[in-house]
Amino acid sequence: MGTAYLVGAGPGAADLLTVRAVRLLERADVVLHDALVSPEVLALAPRARKIAVGKRAGLPSTDQALISRLLVHEARSHPVVVRLKGGDPSLFARADEELDACRRAGIAVEVVPGISAGFAAAAAAATPLSARGIARSVVFVTASTATDEGADAWADAAAAADSCVIYMGRGQGAAIRAALLARGVAPATPVVAARSVETAQAALWVGTLDGLADLTATAGGPGPVVLLVGAAFGAARSQALPETAASSPRPLRQARRA
Amino acid sequence: MGTAYLVGAGPGAADLLTVRAVRLLERADVVLHDALVSPEVLALAPRARKIAVGKRAGLPSTDQALISRLLVHEARSHPVVVRLKGGDPSLFARADEELDACRRAGIAVEVVPGISAGFAAAAAAATPLSARGIARSVVFVTASTATDEGADAWADAAAAADSCVIYMGRGQGAAIRAALLARGVAPATPVVAARSVETAQAALWVGTLDGLADLTATAGGPGPVVLLVGAAFGAARSQALPETAASSPRPLRQARRA
Repeated sequence: MGTAYLVGAGPGAADLLTVRAVRLLERADVVLHDALVSPEVLALAPRARKIAVGKRAGLPSTDQALISRLLVHEARSHPVVVRLKGGDPSLFARADEELDACRRAGIAVEVVPGISAGFAAAAAAATPLSARGIARSVVFVTASTATDEGADAWADAAAAADSCVIYMGRGQGAAIRAALLARGVAPATPVVAARSVETAQAALWVGTLDGLADLTATAGGPGPVVLLVGAAFGAARSQALPETAASSPRPLRQARRA
Repeated sequence: MGTAYLVGAGPGAADLLTVRAVRLLERADVVLHDALVSPEVLALAPRARKIAVGKRAGLPSTDQALISRLLVHEARSHPVVVRLKGGDPSLFARADEELDACRRAGIAVEVVPGISAGFAAAAAAATPLSARGIARSVVFVTASTATDEGADAWADAAAAADSCVIYMGRGQGAAIRAALLARGVAPATPVVAARSVETAQAALWVGTLDGLADLTATAGGPGPVVLLVGAAFGAARSQALPETAASSPRPLRQARRA
């Protein structure tokens, strides 16, 4: 019996994996990976048989139960099986279901953390998620739940925190705007939309909650979008991205150096 | 003029730095580091002059304004200056003040993300922060604000989210318990106290919100404590740490393999 490693692949760039993740990939016999994991990252596992088990908004996805079964199956016959997930395995990655499947099957399992997209977005924009006297609480939510039964709960949590990081916000701009305005979040609250940070498609847009529907429409294109909503991001924007506007996306490197 | 890099050192273990962080440390001329950054991590910067600028609860600390001035001063005369912060620079690390100081001085600045302690704790305990149908929002707060004027705000944010990650919880157990119970969080809500994950002093304790004061008292000793509060952590605990109790801490490696 082998060990299943749930490993965070980070936001895209191969040099944003942890050293531990890189060493595991070098030793891996099998890698089960999300569709969003880049070829550059997969190249770190030269020995491994690679199996794409991608779930990606709007594209055909592999069933979660099937992924869990596959993980258990491979770990029964290979020493080192890596389940490589974009970002961090503990946040919005359905690790709970895969961990449960391994435990039920008696497979040893270990989690290796990664850089989640919200942290990569904050770093790329040089806008900290917390800021003394401005943002003392930071909440992570996924806007894909906006259409589920938990719609109210995510927005309540988002409105109660000083900074809000919204994953999978693409196409949800109008719904997110309405939910937050209804809970008393100010229309002028700064918003940063970060697309595919740490990839070749990386771009940042800066606006306000009131203009969020336009902002998320503009931030289209390939790859996922992370939204940062809160007063902390306005303070940073005026210094870090002085010329960025919803209508003029700038490559991240350029924005960062401005 | 050089560049100032605000770099996340992660939770302690040198192999949980990102590859980008390791490469920067190898090139660094000067490293300004927190007291909690381990010797193992500092050894990754053989060329650099190392300056401890630690802020650590209960110990004498270097003034934040002095740290910012020092960072600017060093970056004026050295090409690669690394400001190395435990965890991630964007979360509860006062990066906003150091970024502002660099920008005012015209110093180029870049942020390299790291693994924040809450993600390391979740990984070590194999208890995801989010769980389908149980935890769709995850809030990060610091309990050191419990004594500031923002006391109510952090607890409101904590109570509104499904999962709550509390940094700097040491010695705040009774205050955190009272604030969350007053906001309707159930006394039986599961809590994990993670001390110094990814260091030699690493340990996990599992309990409930009602017993939080005892739990944080038990989780004393060296290093910072992160608290995970929420229904998601109870489900994982009963599978991952079946024999762990507040009175019997177990080394993380052992707990993880159980």
